[in-house]
Amino acid sequence: MSLAKTITLIGAGNVATHLGKAFLNNGFSINQVYSKSIDNAYSLASELNAMPCDDVKFITDESDIYIICIKDDAINDIVEQISFKNKIIAHTSGSIPLSVLNGFNNYGIFYPLQTFSKNKNVTINEVPFCIEANNDETKNTLLDLAKSLSNNVNEINSEQRKKIHLAAVFACNFTNYMYSISEDILNQSNIDLDILKPLIIETAKKIQNNSPKTMQTGPAKRNDDVVLKNHIELLANSKDYQDIYKIITDNIIKRK
Amino acid sequence: MSLAKTITLIGAGNVATHLGKAFLNNGFSINQVYSKSIDNAYSLASELNAMPCDDVKFITDESDIYIICIKDDAINDIVEQISFKNKIIAHTSGSIPLSVLNGFNNYGIFYPLQTFSKNKNVTINEVPFCIEANNDETKNTLLDLAKSLSNNVNEINSEQRKKIHLAAVFACNFTNYMYSISEDILNQSNIDLDILKPLIIETAKKIQNNSPKTMQTGPAKRNDDVVLKNHIELLANSKDYQDIYKIITDNIIKRK
Repeated sequence: MSLAKTITLIGAGNVATHLGKAFLNNGFSINQVYSKSIDNAYSLASELNAMPCDDVKFITDESDIYIICIKDDAINDIVEQISFKNKIIAHTSGSIPLSVLNGFNNYGIFYPLQTFSKNKNVTINEVPFCIEANNDETKNTLLDLAKSLSNNVNEINSEQRKKIHLAAVFACNFTNYMYSISEDILNQSNIDLDILKPLIIETAKKIQNNSPKTMQTGPAKRNDDVVLKNHIELLANSKDYQDIYKIITDNIIKRK
Repeated sequence: MSLAKTITLIGAGNVATHLGKAFLNNGFSINQVYSKSIDNAYSLASELNAMPCDDVKFITDESDIYIICIKDDAINDIVEQISFKNKIIAHTSGSIPLSVLNGFNNYGIFYPLQTFSKNKNVTINEVPFCIEANNDETKNTLLDLAKSLSNNVNEINSEQRKKIHLAAVFACNFTNYMYSISEDILNQSNIDLDILKPLIIETAKKIQNNSPKTMQTGPAKRNDDVVLKNHIELLANSKDYQDIYKIITDNIIKRK
């Protein structure tokens, strides 16, 4: 089986930007970049030596693979407008089912499990890719495509992908919110979050080689009543933070 | 003012081990290591070329500085048993007030804001130290001592230290618990936490140069009802996780 060589990107945001550059760096060519904003399409297309496009009906059928990297709630609307059905098409969403693409013959998921920001480089060959497809040939093409970018490529079905996405909400979105609360608490006493940053990095590093269950520390883990009560009092000016403190603390104590 | 040169460590756990080695590597000598377990005292003392001791009354007054690195709830009991009052004594706890040491003439806080594990190296010169003392001379001695180990030394009063400790519970203990929940969700579908580790590291790195508030992503931030409802359903077998999901999600939505 020969590796597909030409790609159309549907989307021009963070995911499209990082994937597009990675494809280009690994010998693929990008034919078109679609975005509903012509400025965004043009900006990314010019970086990728591709043609910009802001109207779905001008997306041509000349590429081997079409990668959809747009907001979850826009995927369905866009795919319904694509008239040709015989090319491989895949979306990059963690939460949208494979079936959204079942109007096509060959379709799949090409989900990079990473948080992408526009101006921050990501080591693409360490990004876990989650691949799924409606038939073996498409799956193999998408697996090969992912393997040409990353050393961490996984076959993941839709049920597993849902769980991974949910787990990522806890490990990343909610974790970031914990950082946010910390910053708020510190700022109230004119302290910068900087003082906690080494500890935040170390906490993330510690679970790279150990189960987080075995790494749990702190007053809840020790069931240290005095400290727990002091903390609840210190949070007296925020019922929201108090409630979060209590519920997570109770959970940690239960699971001791 | 000449820098103090000899140190006694009261405690032989993770903090005492990491500090003891760092003191030794930076030209200090350790006279004694106290632990209520003679095995632990002996084990660390032999690494540090110090004398072990398992009885407070055998702690001698020959050192310049006494650093207390034992569990919070044991500090008061130990310090009451130390008979000499004329040496500098400091504890390493984030949550115990300075006043626990006010039976001494010169006392302070020497709080390394990091999570220490026995067999994991820590880059000590990046660890933030929080210093406080009952007089300027003691404060300067402890500041100098910390600066000989780390480039990140801060004068922090007890009120601020309480807030830092509380903020660290959110940013580290609670964050680790979020990792734990993730692992649990993944394991229920036979997926290893490994797949989330690059994302976990990137999430911690992203806030090193940006406020976490500006880095918040995910379905709660987007107020994506469909995904939020799906996630609540996926958590149907754990009311605890559902409750945590709901309360943090509601908070993120409120703060949008």
